[in-house]
Amino acid sequence: MYRAVITIRLKRGVLNPEGRTILRALNFLGYKEVKDVDTFKCIELLVEGDDKDKIRERVEEMCRRLLANPVIHDYYIEVEKIDQ
Amino acid sequence: MYRAVITIRLKRGVLNPEGRTILRALNFLGYKEVKDVDTFKCIELLVEGDDKDKIRERVEEMCRRLLANPVIHDYYIEVEKIDQ
Repeated sequence: MYRAVITIRLKRGVLNPEGRTILRALNFLGYKEVKDVDTFKCIELLVEGDDKDKIRERVEEMCRRLLANPVIHDYYIEVEKIDQ
Repeated sequence: MYRAVITIRLKRGVLNPEGRTILRALNFLGYKEVKDVDTFKCIELLVEGDDKDKIRERVEEMCRRLLANPVIHDYYIEVEKIDQ
């Protein structure tokens, strides 16, 4: 079994309204030391298989086909073996 | 300047409908080797200050007051110095 973690974040230059809202809220609550906020999302997959490279390739394909939007997202994938 | 990354995920036992939906969609697309999917969220703060412990304490407070819901979320915080 492998765990694959996909980190998906907006490309540089794409506005992140959620981050902007959190920044405003934190400043409003008195946390003036916070200068910028960004948010991103992680998807963790539990994948059956033996071949790490093959799994990475398949996960890459899942990202392209379903999980990420290449127009606005950058993503990277970490794959690690886990004991079950 | 410090970068604080807060990872917020649902507590064990709390249903994650987004993960469930992604799992179903991936299986449907032919990725039968995917056995489970979980999703979580990260918030990255750029924080002004010199004292790492103090910053961690403040970020902890932000989580309690605004960013996480202690009823359903677990979270952890990483703080690292960055050059600017």
